[in-house]
Amino acid sequence: MKRIVLGVEYDGTNFYGWQFQPALRTVQDELEKAISKIAGEKIRITCAGRTDAGVHAMGQVIHFDTSVDRPESAWILGVKTNLPDDITIAWMKEVSSEFSARFSAVERHYCYLVNTSQVNSAINRYRMLWHPKLLDVNAMREATQYLLGKHDFSSFRAAGCQSKSPVRCMNEILISSQQSVIRLDFKANAFLHHMIRNIVGALLSVGSLKTSPIWIKEVLEAKDRQAAGITAAPYGLYFMSVSYPDEFDMPAKNRLMVLCAD
Amino acid sequence: MKRIVLGVEYDGTNFYGWQFQPALRTVQDELEKAISKIAGEKIRITCAGRTDAGVHAMGQVIHFDTSVDRPESAWILGVKTNLPDDITIAWMKEVSSEFSARFSAVERHYCYLVNTSQVNSAINRYRMLWHPKLLDVNAMREATQYLLGKHDFSSFRAAGCQSKSPVRCMNEILISSQQSVIRLDFKANAFLHHMIRNIVGALLSVGSLKTSPIWIKEVLEAKDRQAAGITAAPYGLYFMSVSYPDEFDMPAKNRLMVLCAD
Repeated sequence: MKRIVLGVEYDGTNFYGWQFQPALRTVQDELEKAISKIAGEKIRITCAGRTDAGVHAMGQVIHFDTSVDRPESAWILGVKTNLPDDITIAWMKEVSSEFSARFSAVERHYCYLVNTSQVNSAINRYRMLWHPKLLDVNAMREATQYLLGKHDFSSFRAAGCQSKSPVRCMNEILISSQQSVIRLDFKANAFLHHMIRNIVGALLSVGSLKTSPIWIKEVLEAKDRQAAGITAAPYGLYFMSVSYPDEFDMPAKNRLMVLCAD
Repeated sequence: MKRIVLGVEYDGTNFYGWQFQPALRTVQDELEKAISKIAGEKIRITCAGRTDAGVHAMGQVIHFDTSVDRPESAWILGVKTNLPDDITIAWMKEVSSEFSARFSAVERHYCYLVNTSQVNSAINRYRMLWHPKLLDVNAMREATQYLLGKHDFSSFRAAGCQSKSPVRCMNEILISSQQSVIRLDFKANAFLHHMIRNIVGALLSVGSLKTSPIWIKEVLEAKDRQAAGITAAPYGLYFMSVSYPDEFDMPAKNRLMVLCAD
């Protein structure tokens, strides 16, 4: 058996999310069909992080096992030929069976885009949250300090989250702005279901001065989903990249290119 | 009668272009239906520049005449309520009947985006031309010098172009690059049908060193469409803005577009 790893980019707009669901269009199903065609056998894939309906991925990583031997071009160009145009393959690598796209990952990086312009954007309507409010970016930055490090993130966890533990380690949160677009970058060992969208919802409440930065600390300590407030829309969220231990020598990370208007 | 001017943004992906065609989805038709509903009477609109199927607009300008009196909110929020989400209204202004969105315009600004990455982008597949080649940007810049000023642009004009004269005045061409994206900005008094897409096709030929910069001069002087080569795809093209004489005091020149990259 060979273990193949692929770097995958997709536009989440027209998918019912990552995970296979009978009769619905999902990223997993499209990829498994396309890869199975090239392999000539039934292929099941494992991903680094499942994404919800509407969430995009610049740097999703998947692996699968296959009994067949194919050149790199088959796993990239051949698979692409069988994929719809809202999914693409960026790179491939053959690895030992010690590697898992999911379990070998040591850090995931997500990005969230908020368009604060008074005018909604037609071109970016499925690429950014439209939130036409003045936001105090410094207050938002202050609030993020309480989220760094190892915490029980139950307050930012979806009711249906299947993870055994609510504890995650947040390594970095960066907030930057360009024209009227605010960009939030999150890096953690892993994320709970809806965790980033729930954190963004809370940070927007701080940014519009409805709540003070230290309120985020109270929310976190409450360990209660009811404490945090709204979940930000999925289409502003991008799965940017996954980090693996150096020994696996995975390809360089992907880049985000989204059009901004002001 | 009142004359109303609106600033319009649209995602051209799912339109058969600007101009009304029976039974096809066009930007003109969607706007006329939405505005007519708010006016309570049949409205016909005039635009600053008609765009082809797939071409986007950040700063299209339109005007129309109406016998009814409505507040600004009706012409912006009211019309938006009746529009599909791939068109939006950025601003409105009431003007005298001396103003025409089309005939008062003194300069049009278009932008073209080329993604030169080896990997096609799923997220930007309808936002940039994918052209995975190394391009010599300096050679392209040298070539643009021959296009500046007043010229007969017949070599870059579509066969079906309805303009009486093939003469246009090109005021500025700027070529910039950010990561793997090359951006070309064009400003002219007006453009012929397919003029920018035909120029971009020729500049890509120069950039990939298939032809030398001075070849552009030969093409221009040939005054023959056969001389220029391929027409670049529509979905990389954006109608950015229109300039009017200061006396009309039009709202700030729409919106700059930049790329966020990582």
